[in-house]
Amino acid sequence: MAPKPDISQIKRIGIVGAGNMGTMMSFGFSENGLDVSVWDVSEKNVDQAREMAGQTKTLRGQIDYFKDIHEFARSLDSQPRKIFIFSITHGWPADSVLEKIRGDLKEGDIILDGGNENYRNTERRQKELESKGVKWIGMGVSGGYQSARRGPSMSPGGDREAVEFVLPLLEKFSAKSAKDGKPCIQYIGPRGAGHYVKMVHNGIENGMLSAVCEAWSFLHKSLGLSYDEIGDIFEKWNAEGELRSTYLVQIGSEICKMKKTPRGDRQGEGKGEGGYVLDDVLDKVVQDDDSSEGTLFWTVMDAAHRHVSAPTIAAGHFFRVASGNRAQRLKVADNLNIPTPRRAGAKEDKEELVESLRKAVYASFLCSFCQGLELIARASKDEGWDVNLGTCIQIWRAGCIIQEDHIADMLEPILLGAEEPIMNLKLVDEVAADLRDNFGALKQITLKAVEWDSYVPAISASLEYLKYVGGGMLATQFMEAEMDFFGAHAYDRPNVRGEDPGKPTKGAHHYEWRPA
Amino acid sequence: MAPKPDISQIKRIGIVGAGNMGTMMSFGFSENGLDVSVWDVSEKNVDQAREMAGQTKTLRGQIDYFKDIHEFARSLDSQPRKIFIFSITHGWPADSVLEKIRGDLKEGDIILDGGNENYRNTERRQKELESKGVKWIGMGVSGGYQSARRGPSMSPGGDREAVEFVLPLLEKFSAKSAKDGKPCIQYIGPRGAGHYVKMVHNGIENGMLSAVCEAWSFLHKSLGLSYDEIGDIFEKWNAEGELRSTYLVQIGSEICKMKKTPRGDRQGEGKGEGGYVLDDVLDKVVQDDDSSEGTLFWTVMDAAHRHVSAPTIAAGHFFRVASGNRAQRLKVADNLNIPTPRRAGAKEDKEELVESLRKAVYASFLCSFCQGLELIARASKDEGWDVNLGTCIQIWRAGCIIQEDHIADMLEPILLGAEEPIMNLKLVDEVAADLRDNFGALKQITLKAVEWDSYVPAISASLEYLKYVGGGMLATQFMEAEMDFFGAHAYDRPNVRGEDPGKPTKGAHHYEWRPA
Repeated sequence: MAPKPDISQIKRIGIVGAGNMGTMMSFGFSENGLDVSVWDVSEKNVDQAREMAGQTKTLRGQIDYFKDIHEFARSLDSQPRKIFIFSITHGWPADSVLEKIRGDLKEGDIILDGGNENYRNTERRQKELESKGVKWIGMGVSGGYQSARRGPSMSPGGDREAVEFVLPLLEKFSAKSAKDGKPCIQYIGPRGAGHYVKMVHNGIENGMLSAVCEAWSFLHKSLGLSYDEIGDIFEKWNAEGELRSTYLVQIGSEICKMKKTPRGDRQGEGKGEGGYVLDDVLDKVVQDDDSSEGTLFWTVMDAAHRHVSAPTIAAGHFFRVASGNRAQRLKVADNLNIPTPRRAGAKEDKEELVESLRKAVYASFLCSFCQGLELIARASKDEGWDVNLGTCIQIWRAGCIIQEDHIADMLEPILLGAEEPIMNLKLVDEVAADLRDNFGALKQITLKAVEWDSYVPAISASLEYLKYVGGGMLATQFMEAEMDFFGAHAYDRPNVRGEDPGKPTKGAHHYEWRPA
Repeated sequence: MAPKPDISQIKRIGIVGAGNMGTMMSFGFSENGLDVSVWDVSEKNVDQAREMAGQTKTLRGQIDYFKDIHEFARSLDSQPRKIFIFSITHGWPADSVLEKIRGDLKEGDIILDGGNENYRNTERRQKELESKGVKWIGMGVSGGYQSARRGPSMSPGGDREAVEFVLPLLEKFSAKSAKDGKPCIQYIGPRGAGHYVKMVHNGIENGMLSAVCEAWSFLHKSLGLSYDEIGDIFEKWNAEGELRSTYLVQIGSEICKMKKTPRGDRQGEGKGEGGYVLDDVLDKVVQDDDSSEGTLFWTVMDAAHRHVSAPTIAAGHFFRVASGNRAQRLKVADNLNIPTPRRAGAKEDKEELVESLRKAVYASFLCSFCQGLELIARASKDEGWDVNLGTCIQIWRAGCIIQEDHIADMLEPILLGAEEPIMNLKLVDEVAADLRDNFGALKQITLKAVEWDSYVPAISASLEYLKYVGGGMLATQFMEAEMDFFGAHAYDRPNVRGEDPGKPTKGAHHYEWRPA
């Protein structure tokens, strides 16, 4: 085996995929002084990317475009190790490109798969390439096309030596924490750990997205506030307190205020200048239906599979799923004829409600983080990954969609300093205090929203979640009795040593409620 | 190949598994005049079952017990086809017994797997046995140990000829519909269809179980009613109207009134005679933690995987999952210190609330059915199973846990008569009318329960579900805008032909909200 090269010998990397993300990444690397080779299965994408590069003044490193994948691979031959970043659709497209390029790979080469891949596929490819000595790194890249350019948050997982080799390159390109300037990329863990953490990031993201859109709808349809007023509110929320520097709130304020101009124009989006862009946006979220994204529903599946309670994330998912087929939904609406969101009465104290809503949104965000982090902790234990939850918080400090400074400031020192992995975030005093302090607001907003027929699937699910994860004697007492009645599932008894609280294992008693 | 035998030549069947379910089934078949051979991997189970048989006066057919699996298999050699029913734990135990018995199987033999098996495992075994000419039938058996004796509801799926051959035997043993006397067993479809339908049955079951336990808790802790009073209420609910002949409500009334007697005694359960059994039951539902059951969380996983919105079922699942680890929950409760369910004020009209609660429970049941049946419809289409949803309703008319006469009376003729598969139950006028008529009660109960800190995860999830599956312009408008902002996900526009309502596919427009 050749001696380990030095990363400074790497002058050029290869990017597979010239879509939004791939193109922005190629610009980002070039701006950092690296030469880049770009290939895409679609020649049209290659041409478009080349054209965009021609119009971009900030590039420093050279970008070369290829339509032949072997030429593309050969352009990296002078490097001591070829380094590729895949930025293409997960599943079979990634497999098919790997198949094409396999012959061009040699021992030591490193592929960083930046797609939203299922961690089990990542682990399969790592195994397949093992005998060749090629390292496949499953690397979550968060931040969307916006931060792919300005520096994304990245979660590489797989062979530690390979990740550490490329880390200096990626650190330069990555987002940096505003707090301490640290790059938002770190080695996450072996095998599929990196893609797993990105998957859960996207699950948390959707819990938060749902809470934000529920809040927007409440402000607009029930409190009757204009887009501009809501934009101001989101701006204030983003400026200080528990929602400070929260990416989804910050862009929310921009969205509320954004008026149509030819600048945003590609297919006539600038038409009707002066009107709000938001008025042009229909309510169909179709990423599940059109299979362009898997991460969110995989998170729900994995939470179910690993027995981690994740109702905020799941509620947001099922809400989004139901939104996609608008044609069918409108037919159901005709049939069902139930109330739509309505205006609050004039006597309501709007200012107080806005403040409660801010707290309710924060509580829902924190519930999403608890559920997601507990899922990572569970998976890490099950799979032997040894993922540090504090590391996750560090890489989520900038560049990514779930950036939320108050939560990061609170959790980072606790999770990094924890002697043992924390499996239940609600056992952390600071988290519990915040959940307790915002419970009343969460309840108030749920009450008002239900009263006014406003949509609050994720917010109300968060309220129920807090009630039962911190409940003494739950309604499930009766569920347990019913299951023992029909299925002899057996129960434990209160105030009996070894049974109460006891372990989450089959109970010691069965009552023969009705002789079988 | 031997000529097809006649089912009347089958005088004896073999039951693998002498646990609760297997033993009750063996008694059931014997009472129907069939001889039965029983084997279990645990000799203790075999001895216990033999002892129970000795004390049972109603047996007609002979039951023979075996500790050697090959002797057990040979006891069926005189049959033209050996017929086995597996009543053991899903997953590796079923594989291991199949491995043991494989050499004793010959062409034409039929194995009915009555366990709660994952349908993909069923399909794998069907393939493995194909070359041997042995038919593996995945057969859901519902009703718990109680109806395993008195006649369960069964959903066999796999080779149609094999299922139709054994159907006469199983029909005798099965539950019968009170409406028309039809046996609650029918051929469901090829491959894993039978086990799939049972899986979803258990998902619907948990949505219902959650609603019932939430109702019980509301009546007891918020309305302050005694167990006996609640028992009377459940009895009335079960007697007429939308909840008539609902198994889970009916046994709920028995549970509320059941006092401890030595009759139910095995490990001291009769102690403290006169007290309520229910007071002895802790609130830990552990079937997920101890891996004894998979069907519920598989349903949640599959709903996520197939993009079917199933929030009632998922909410009930995540509630149950959070209940299991009571020790950790009590610690969180100490930390979190949020309110527990409290008593309604004296001025509340309890009678009216009880009636609203009845309607809210019914609406939650109907939501569970909609979600479950839509999942079956989706899977049937995806897998080419051609499952008739009306058939599912027919076999769920008696013997099973989700028996609900009003829903069955409403759905059976519609679903059996449908010319095309119904993919969205809310488009059925009768279903929509019932959901609409009970929406107000669902809302009222959610409001009161939230106000009084009562647990309503499944009930409140049902309310949100109805609002968004039948909503015109959803809050997801803002989610869609945010996703276009950070991810260029693209959107469709309102009032544009081909876009509104349009298809659930990637939108036609992207606005460059912030130049990347």
